[in-house]
Amino acid sequence: MSGIVKRPVLEVTGRSRVTRDDALAEERPLAIRVEDHDVAVTLRTPGDDAELALGFLAGEGLLTRRADVAGIEVRAAECSDEPDRIELRLAGGVPFDWSRLERHFAATAACGLCGRAHLDALRGGLEPMTGTSPIALDRLLALAERVRAMQRGFAATGGLHAAAWCDETLEPRVVREDVGRHNAVDKVCGWLLEQGRHGDAGGLLWVSGRAGAELVLKAARARIPVMAAVGAPSSLAVELSAAAGMTLAGFVRAGRMNLYSGAERLRG
Amino acid sequence: MSGIVKRPVLEVTGRSRVTRDDALAEERPLAIRVEDHDVAVTLRTPGDDAELALGFLAGEGLLTRRADVAGIEVRAAECSDEPDRIELRLAGGVPFDWSRLERHFAATAACGLCGRAHLDALRGGLEPMTGTSPIALDRLLALAERVRAMQRGFAATGGLHAAAWCDETLEPRVVREDVGRHNAVDKVCGWLLEQGRHGDAGGLLWVSGRAGAELVLKAARARIPVMAAVGAPSSLAVELSAAAGMTLAGFVRAGRMNLYSGAERLRG
Repeated sequence: MSGIVKRPVLEVTGRSRVTRDDALAEERPLAIRVEDHDVAVTLRTPGDDAELALGFLAGEGLLTRRADVAGIEVRAAECSDEPDRIELRLAGGVPFDWSRLERHFAATAACGLCGRAHLDALRGGLEPMTGTSPIALDRLLALAERVRAMQRGFAATGGLHAAAWCDETLEPRVVREDVGRHNAVDKVCGWLLEQGRHGDAGGLLWVSGRAGAELVLKAARARIPVMAAVGAPSSLAVELSAAAGMTLAGFVRAGRMNLYSGAERLRG
Repeated sequence: MSGIVKRPVLEVTGRSRVTRDDALAEERPLAIRVEDHDVAVTLRTPGDDAELALGFLAGEGLLTRRADVAGIEVRAAECSDEPDRIELRLAGGVPFDWSRLERHFAATAACGLCGRAHLDALRGGLEPMTGTSPIALDRLLALAERVRAMQRGFAATGGLHAAAWCDETLEPRVVREDVGRHNAVDKVCGWLLEQGRHGDAGGLLWVSGRAGAELVLKAARARIPVMAAVGAPSSLAVELSAAAGMTLAGFVRAGRMNLYSGAERLRG
């Protein structure tokens, strides 16, 4: 199974010692490159790398249509000291806002710009979502068990986060797993871009862990009006989802949930 | 309680609806600044901000002694569109390797450098740790419940990760919580720097979630030879801990664990 490796492990239970092979979630660096420039290096679980790269760039507002990318090539590292690489070629005439990328990274991760840009980026593009389809409450309460059954990597390793996009009927249409929560969401967003739905997705974003602010922003940029998390939201996630007109549910499991914003979208 | 905010929530259980106040983990941006330059903006849970900044910089190899920092000042944001700021002043004559910072961020997050620098950074400073004190297995198996009882923020919100440093007898000496796993570890590492122990810490690093590669590296840089996680390790975490001569235990809970490297350090 892709993204899973076997390693020997000593299992200790009380006085018992058993040596066996354990299934581990694979984690390897991937350099995302556009026109021969590195734009990010992420520690990810291999698999669905094209979706990861496309979703990451769409989440940054750098890509809006799949057709803007003319070619995608994944190159596995030739030795263990190098990252894998994914090389994207843009279609002729497609603009790519390198300054936006620099501003984003400068603000979120480094080097001398005012932190204000970060908050602007956080809130940028958060036009409130209104008029989207209602969501059936009983189906939402039953979703945790349905998605869990589709998390094949988690079942094998216990070490993978999952994200899923469900359509308006709450049918899971895509489930992706990764050691990184953000990567799992980026893979789902890349799938939406492939389907021509990113930026007008509708439906619901499911995450298997907690709902942090950056995940809410990725949903908002894809125009997914409902986010549901198995774990807790943060204070900033609640603020941003309310500002974006989104419905945010946390602790969605075992037939219950907490609703933090957007109750008007639920039916039943 | 610091780092926790109350927000209204609609609690849905089957047909029951209850509106109440919920305790949420606070998440707010913090700009970490050295000599008036932004070096990072992180989404963190307020509290222990000085430890967070010190531990982050120590983990990057930019600070090795608390005495190198002459002043630390936290400035809360004046409006919600700005991050909080922590301003560090270096002691006179202390060198600060800005190029290292740029190289690190360029490699991990952006802008035009070869991804190879990232891997070099990953493995840099991983001199194998040998000859450290043995760890009592029965105390390690009992640690999950002890640390859990100290996670006050998690008990209130269900939304905070924890990290702890334990001395050689596995006595928890410091427990820190944050919405970000890395931040929780940075806070613990900052505490170690304050105590004059970062870089020669010994003992054990406890994390309440999974063990990813970057957390193993933070432990290695603090020279903590044992890492124990409630959750699963990734493949790269196992590789790096073995390369660093570290003991790595995962799924440490309910009286059992999986040991991935460094079994020779355990006694009993």
